[in-house]
Amino acid sequence: MSLLTVGSVAFDAIETPFGKTDKIIGGAGTYIALAASFYNNRQNIVSVVGEDFPNEMLEELKRRNIDISGIQIKRGEKTFFWSGKYHNDMNSRDTLVTELNVLEHFDPIVPESYQGTEYLMLGNLSPQVQRQVIERLTERPKLIAMDTMNFWMDIALDDLKETLKLIDVLIINDEEARQLSGEYSLVKASKIIREMGPQYLIIKKGEHGALLFHESKMFFAPALPLEEVFDPTGAGDTFAGGFMGYIASTDDISFENMKRAIINGSALASFCVEEFGTERLMNITAKDLEERIEEFVSLTNFDMIQIIS
Amino acid sequence: MSLLTVGSVAFDAIETPFGKTDKIIGGAGTYIALAASFYNNRQNIVSVVGEDFPNEMLEELKRRNIDISGIQIKRGEKTFFWSGKYHNDMNSRDTLVTELNVLEHFDPIVPESYQGTEYLMLGNLSPQVQRQVIERLTERPKLIAMDTMNFWMDIALDDLKETLKLIDVLIINDEEARQLSGEYSLVKASKIIREMGPQYLIIKKGEHGALLFHESKMFFAPALPLEEVFDPTGAGDTFAGGFMGYIASTDDISFENMKRAIINGSALASFCVEEFGTERLMNITAKDLEERIEEFVSLTNFDMIQIIS
Repeated sequence: MSLLTVGSVAFDAIETPFGKTDKIIGGAGTYIALAASFYNNRQNIVSVVGEDFPNEMLEELKRRNIDISGIQIKRGEKTFFWSGKYHNDMNSRDTLVTELNVLEHFDPIVPESYQGTEYLMLGNLSPQVQRQVIERLTERPKLIAMDTMNFWMDIALDDLKETLKLIDVLIINDEEARQLSGEYSLVKASKIIREMGPQYLIIKKGEHGALLFHESKMFFAPALPLEEVFDPTGAGDTFAGGFMGYIASTDDISFENMKRAIINGSALASFCVEEFGTERLMNITAKDLEERIEEFVSLTNFDMIQIIS
Repeated sequence: MSLLTVGSVAFDAIETPFGKTDKIIGGAGTYIALAASFYNNRQNIVSVVGEDFPNEMLEELKRRNIDISGIQIKRGEKTFFWSGKYHNDMNSRDTLVTELNVLEHFDPIVPESYQGTEYLMLGNLSPQVQRQVIERLTERPKLIAMDTMNFWMDIALDDLKETLKLIDVLIINDEEARQLSGEYSLVKASKIIREMGPQYLIIKKGEHGALLFHESKMFFAPALPLEEVFDPTGAGDTFAGGFMGYIASTDDISFENMKRAIINGSALASFCVEEFGTERLMNITAKDLEERIEEFVSLTNFDMIQIIS
């Protein structure tokens, strides 16, 4: 099926306890598109970059069967840039630099050839831009998923709430779920957030896995315990890209299939953190992914034949 | 089979954001024995209380098929008392009072009738006392599990390391695993700790579930996401008691069965936190436990029939 990703294609500079990068390729849209490219979809992307963005990366996306005609290249402008430093525990980070650049006045133009897309993944962007994309689609996709962050809850909560009414799956982390709902308990938070619009809520808990909520159902997928988390940047976006890539390629939005999609997203995210930026994602083979998914199966699988009580 | 539990039978006074108790029954040995009593075992317990300990509770343990002839009652002395206050997130707590009382000079006498026990669960106590119990058993049990805490790592690390050489399963939390190993990564920590003696390591992560490590195998069980954690006291001991109770009753120490035992322990622990102290544990029916285990199955179960890559 076809999947439209909307999200930043950007530069990052990252510092972790293991090292430091110069400007490297990053951006939610990049990670989502790369992760989703492991599945058989017609993939489109709406984004914006400056003229400083390397053409090789755009070519790389094309090689991965991603139609990049929706990536605007702004002459005389610079690409979005984020720089951050992770603390020793890798669970928290400080933002050192945020240069919005081309994202400041981003008008998400949807090419005519993208119309009719069956699946839509809205990466973290202003909720107003996310809503504009939905409104510009002539046909409503079968499933609309979106990410957001506490920043938008702080400065554009009303806008965010408007956009939440239009989507199906919200993918956020535990801290964001607590802020959005005002509830510490994630079970309580999930009810409040789903009353805001999305029927499905995925709460990412980083190294502690992810929870999927729908109606009275709950599913939990662990993160793969790793010897080393080298760089967590992009793991959440990779998760979302793997999730929607899998859903779109299987064209099945049942709860059972969403579980599989979450395991796929978790598996891809577990690769993402092994190297800086998109490095590891670029080199995963189909066999790597299959083996990683097997590790998830063996990590969580048990049979309860002997219930004694 | 027969299970011997060694651990404190004590008084607690607990304060959580939901309320406050007077002195209530607590102690690692109590929680372990109560949890293990859901399974069909010959259960024994070695512990010590003062003359202030209520006889009704001892009778309650007897009614649950626990042989309490190994609980020493010290005339003229007082029962171990701990008081603590949980912070709002329930993940951290301050100890307000610790009165060792009868535990200060605890000599863990093993009644003759307890000899030949097949399974041994050593609750958190000084590693020297834990070792004494092992040495006093004329036959080595099939499986020896033990809990410990950072306190003993701080003041009796050498003793602890001696005891670790004699056991099979160590059950500790993530913070303790990090302290004991000096490694932040739990995967790395698990290797270092298993080189100290125990072939099996269970790392409890509270609301984030539990990990089992053995050889190159890993298993992860989530904690059940709850609307409300009312009082976490005893949840770890309840987990350990459910784990060993299940293992002993099935008399199967395979990795596959340990997975089931962990799910059983997690299910019992999820009840424990619903009310203060042992209140909820006292009222669980076999049907409650069965239904809770079903919730774990549905929370974690997925089938990966459609791997697309």
